[in-house]
This record gives sequence, structure tokens and C-alpha cells, in this order.
Amino acid sequence: MKPSKEIVVPGFRGAGTFCGIKKSGKPDLALVVSDRPCVSAVVFTRNKVAAAPVVWGKALRNRSRLRGIVANSGNANACTGAVGIRAVRETSRAVGKALGLPVDSLLIGSTGVIGVPLPVERIVASLPGLAARLSPKGIAGAGEAIRTTDAFPKHGIRKIRAGRRTITIGAIAKGAGMIAPNMGTMLAYAFTDAALAPADARRLLREATDATFNRIVVDGDTSTNDTAALFANGACGLPPLEGEGLAAFREALLSLLLDLALMIVRDGEGATRVVRLSVTGARTRADATKAARAAASSPLVKTAVYGADLNWGRVIAVLGRAGIAVEPMKISMRFAGETLLRRGMRADPAAQLRAAPKIRAEAYAIDVDLGLGSGSDYVYFSDLSVDYVKLNSGYRS
Amino acid sequence: MKPSKEIVVPGFRGAGTFCGIKKSGKPDLALVVSDRPCVSAVVFTRNKVAAAPVVWGKALRNRSRLRGIVANSGNANACTGAVGIRAVRETSRAVGKALGLPVDSLLIGSTGVIGVPLPVERIVASLPGLAARLSPKGIAGAGEAIRTTDAFPKHGIRKIRAGRRTITIGAIAKGAGMIAPNMGTMLAYAFTDAALAPADARRLLREATDATFNRIVVDGDTSTNDTAALFANGACGLPPLEGEGLAAFREALLSLLLDLALMIVRDGEGATRVVRLSVTGARTRADATKAARAAASSPLVKTAVYGADLNWGRVIAVLGRAGIAVEPMKISMRFAGETLLRRGMRADPAAQLRAAPKIRAEAYAIDVDLGLGSGSDYVYFSDLSVDYVKLNSGYRS
Repeated sequence: MKPSKEIVVPGFRGAGTFCGIKKSGKPDLALVVSDRPCVSAVVFTRNKVAAAPVVWGKALRNRSRLRGIVANSGNANACTGAVGIRAVRETSRAVGKALGLPVDSLLIGSTGVIGVPLPVERIVASLPGLAARLSPKGIAGAGEAIRTTDAFPKHGIRKIRAGRRTITIGAIAKGAGMIAPNMGTMLAYAFTDAALAPADARRLLREATDATFNRIVVDGDTSTNDTAALFANGACGLPPLEGEGLAAFREALLSLLLDLALMIVRDGEGATRVVRLSVTGARTRADATKAARAAASSPLVKTAVYGADLNWGRVIAVLGRAGIAVEPMKISMRFAGETLLRRGMRADPAAQLRAAPKIRAEAYAIDVDLGLGSGSDYVYFSDLSVDYVKLNSGYRS
Repeated sequence: MKPSKEIVVPGFRGAGTFCGIKKSGKPDLALVVSDRPCVSAVVFTRNKVAAAPVVWGKALRNRSRLRGIVANSGNANACTGAVGIRAVRETSRAVGKALGLPVDSLLIGSTGVIGVPLPVERIVASLPGLAARLSPKGIAGAGEAIRTTDAFPKHGIRKIRAGRRTITIGAIAKGAGMIAPNMGTMLAYAFTDAALAPADARRLLREATDATFNRIVVDGDTSTNDTAALFANGACGLPPLEGEGLAAFREALLSLLLDLALMIVRDGEGATRVVRLSVTGARTRADATKAARAAASSPLVKTAVYGADLNWGRVIAVLGRAGIAVEPMKISMRFAGETLLRRGMRADPAAQLRAAPKIRAEAYAIDVDLGLGSGSDYVYFSDLSVDYVKLNSGYRS
């Protein structure tokens, strides 16, 4: 799951630079562009307090054929009112001019501190130079420029054989939920040289997002800026994928985005462990989802995971307050494969001894069976560590 | 708000002892009894995974005239199945025998680790000695015996003049939400020598609980054992309160339970600050409640409070995902009385400078105005500190 070094997708070029937003002087402006028209799909945060680029992007998304992305880090351009929307428009105009493309050819993203006006003039001034430095090997560099508090860069690549040709999917991502002090947001951008029918692009992205980015919990908070997008430029020379080819592409996209999603959880601020929490036997799927998310967001469950504590009592207490159908005497629970609770009662103490060393691993599973129906769901979540609190309380913009 | 030393309520006697549950050897069994019949009211946790004494108590509550409480700490008797219910019955029988009262004369409470069988034989063996030590000054000692991880004892007293007589209300409490490693629960017991009509007792306890214990958030988790009860034995010699007398009693009860609730938040594990978060201008009261609770439970908001960070961006991000009606450009927010956000936009930066020192206090207010309607609500919450994580991850039963 190590990020691969080279993220090259035929027909796409990328670059990243420092334009003057971050105090650290690290890269804060990213650009990835296809050399030909794309089919694209975008999903946005459901947070009702949406940042300016999200408001703008939502209005835009079905109106044009996007060619890629321009995104800044260090400033979320959220809660910035009309000035914020104006900043997005200016960026859109400037990048179109720099690339010789019509206005509104790129999706615009922002991530960082909320409520501070975006220094758009610095972005505008940097765009011509950034456009001049676009290169096929520059996508990973663009990924660098969207990092905020990310401890490591997040990108990945998949290649699929399609007859005698190869289809490539590359992706970059940053963040984890609303991860940072007051820097927000997860951003994830995937680029492929496959040709896709627009409806397929939208469906595949929605499905893949639902199974990956929508299944990770770091802190239970949803950012104002979350955005995931897929760009398909058809540069592989094949007609739009269908049937088996489309299925293989779907699988590869899912696997790639799952990699990135897991990188995001692993990079959850201060995280030391990732747990896959599954809930089965719920009365409905919605109940399973609610239960899994409530447990994954509970500070008591998260600190127990941090402390390598086999604390099914905290999980069951969450299930009881999660607003779902539960019957305590039907609940069973496994930690790292060992049954600790069987139908509401503490199971064989030997299982506890066997499980104890296993939950010191960097990743393990907690499986809850509610014993009521066939509803099931799962999430991946990170623990709540001393470093999480230090990171989130220790400084201020 | 310092707990007063003497909690003496005419007609009630109390005592606490070590019966052998806690490894520390600290008091773990509490008894408070009225020397005459009481009118009583009880409210229980809404957690669907209810502990054995809660299951038993719910079945009991309208069936008998309770005289007081017997409660143990160090073991929650939760997720203990039929054995747990049997343990409650045995306790009930044994305490009745020790006091020369009918079975089911006392409300039974438990608080502590979940999922471990209760050593009921130790409770039963200790009850005769404990009953022999009951004394009018022993209520605070009973309060000592229900502590788990509480850093300080929680009790209080109020006196109301009623003509030429004095009515007394004394109360003891422990915990904060689902506060501890795997020791659960808040317990609160109030005792008064007033005479109350049964319906008034129930209504007053419900109202007071709703305005106090139901308005505090430490970790967002609801325990399996939460219980609050009011016992009125009429020993003051007056007829059941009504009219102005009842109103004065209501006020005193509310003020007393608010004191105890605030002690519980202040004692929230590792807490350094308590914030009163109010939400006004919500479309409905239910929206206001949802918003206040979501913000009070957000680890990002809580770590910002710990770090004395004026981070309204984190609060507004929670409002956007709380599942309520919001219009970002109508939201205003004050920290410690200073307006930082006015109708969705950052307000005068000078206000930020003025607010900065104020949010280093042990207690302050965050006021959110959603600008949509007349729904309002509030909660008190504690911050999320490094010590919280250490306390909740650092040991295991």
C-alpha cells in the first residue's frame, strides 16, 4: 500500500507550486489538466455549510466538460461569502487564460483554514508559471501541493489490460474527514485514459466513493470542502468501456480509491491504528450504517482502540444509544476474530487472552452481529490518541 | 458551588462502606433510607442496552413506594444476563431483611465495569453491618461510596422557608455521561422532607433532569446505568406542596441538580474547561437541540476549547453536517460575548483580540444564532484534553 512514485496517466499533465498561501512555504497550488476533452464526474460534501468552490462546482458540474483540476491548500475559501465566490470565478478565468482553454474548464478546489479571505491574487499571479511547468510526471507533484496536515502524500495507480492496450487510472488525495485544526477537508482526484460514457463515469464514481471515502471515520466531522472527482480522457484510444472491460475498470477504480481512503485513515491525525468495524444482523442496512458510524465516532471506543483495550462494553453501550433496533441478549461481538461477547453475555475468557495481543496490531477488525436481520455495513476508523489532542489543540492560525 | 459538608435531610439516614468490589479498597456500597414511606420518582437511561438494575427498576417503579436507595460502585451489573437480574433480586431481598422492610422498598443502582458478574454475595454479606451504621449525617458518606473515577464527591443541599418551617432537599451524584474506561454512568439521588403529590414528584424530577443532567455532555456517550431519583418523605410536617410553595421547591430542586450536573461536567475526565453552548434562531427546538449536542460532542470543537482556540470554523462545520436546517449566510456566533461571525462572515478582527483572553477562563459561553426561527436550546460540555485520552486508554480492568 506504499504510494507508488510515478503517477503517469496518458494525456494528463500535472504540476504543483508554492504561490504564497502557506506560511511554511510548502507547495500550495496544484494543477492537473487533460490535453483533450474529458468525461467527468464529481461528488461533493453534504455539509450544508459548503465552501465557495463547492457552491460554485455544484452549479457547474453538469454544464461543461471539465478537463482537470486547479486546487489550493492552506485556505478553504469557506464562510467567505460573495468575496469567496468571486475568488473562485477569478481563478477559473485566470486558469483558462493560462491554458488557452474556455473559462470553466477546470474544477476548482480549496482546502485549509475556514473563514479567512482567499488571497486569490497570488493564485492568479502564479497560474501562468504553473501552466508552463505542466508535465506528464507532474501529477504526484500536484498531489504534494494539496497536502495540509497530511503526514505523507497519498496517491496511487492501477493498470488494466484491455485486449492489447493498457488502461491507466491514477489518483491523488489528501486529508481525512475534517482532519485538521481549522484546515478542512478531504480532496480526491482520479484521472484515467479510459473512455467512459458520462452516465457510467457518474455511477462508477458514486459507487466507488460510497465504498471507500464514505466509509472512513477519523473524527466524525464532515468538512465544508470534501470533493472527489473522476476525469476520463479516452487517450488510450479505445471506445467507451462496457461489459467486462467496464467491470474490470470499476474494480480497479474501487481498489485504487480504497487504497487512498485507507491511507487517509492511517494518516488520521495522531492515529496509531486502523480498525475495520463491521455490523451485520441489523434489522436494516440503515441501522447497520448508523451503528457502525456511531461506534467509529465514539471517543470512548476510539481511546480504547488506542489503549489496546478489549473493551466491548464501550461498543455495546454505543449500540444501545445509536437510535437503532437492538436486543442486548442477541448481540455478539468479535475482536480480531475472537468472540468476546456471545448473545449478550461475556464469552469464554480464554478468547480474551487470545485477542489481547492481536489488537496491538496496526490494523484489525471488530465484527458486531446484532442478531436481528440481514442489514449490514462497515467503516474503517482510526483511534483517538494523545497526539490527536495535541495536534488539534496545540496551535491556532 | 463547593459541595457542602453536611447533607442532613430530616427523616433520612445514610451510610457507605467497602464491601469488597473495588480493588482499591475504597467505599463501594451506599445506602440511604427514609424512616417513613416516601413519594418517589425515577428517570432511567434511554440506552437500549440497560443494566440489570435499570431493567429491574423500570419494572418496579410504579409498583411500590420506595424508601431510598442501595447502590454499589465498581461493577455496573450490565450485560450480565439472567444472573445480573438475579443479583438485583438478591440485593433487594437482603436489604429489605437488614432494614426490616418489605422486599422492593429500595431502588437499586450499580455503576462501574460492564460485563463482569456482580459479586452479589459480598453485597449481601455487608448489608446488615451497613444498615446498623445508618445515620442522619451519613448521606454524604453514601455519596462517597458511589464514586468511580470521580475526582471529587458531588453533593449539595437547599433549604426553603415555608411559613415557619424549613424544607430541605439534599442530593448526591456521581459520574458524567458514560465517563470512564469501562466504568459507566451517572447516578443522582435527591432526598427531601417535603411532602409531594406523586404526580408532582414525577413532573418535577422530569423537568429538573431535562434542564440539568440531560444538558451535560462529556463524551457524547450514554451509559447503560444512568439513573436519577427523587424521594420525598414529608418529614417536615407540612401537607403536600402546591402553588407558591411548590414553585419555590421546583426552583430549589432545579438549582441543586444544576449544581450537581455542572460538578459532573467539571469532573469530566481530564476536563479543564466547561462551555455553555446555546443555539438560538433554529427553525425548531429539535433542530437547536441537535445542533447543540452535535457541537458539544465534536472532538474538533472540544480540542479547540481545550487549546483556547477561537475556532468558530469548527463549530460552523458541525452545524452544516448536523442534519438541521441552516443557511450559512444567516449564522452568527459569539465566543465569551464577543461576536466573531456575523451572518456567515468573519466579524471585526478586534473582537477576536478581545475574546482571546476570555476563552482561557474555566467557564465561558458560545452562543450560536442560526437566524432562521425561534427554536433554542443549550448544553454544558467539557473539553477534550490530553488527560482525557490518557485516562481512557491508559488502563484496563
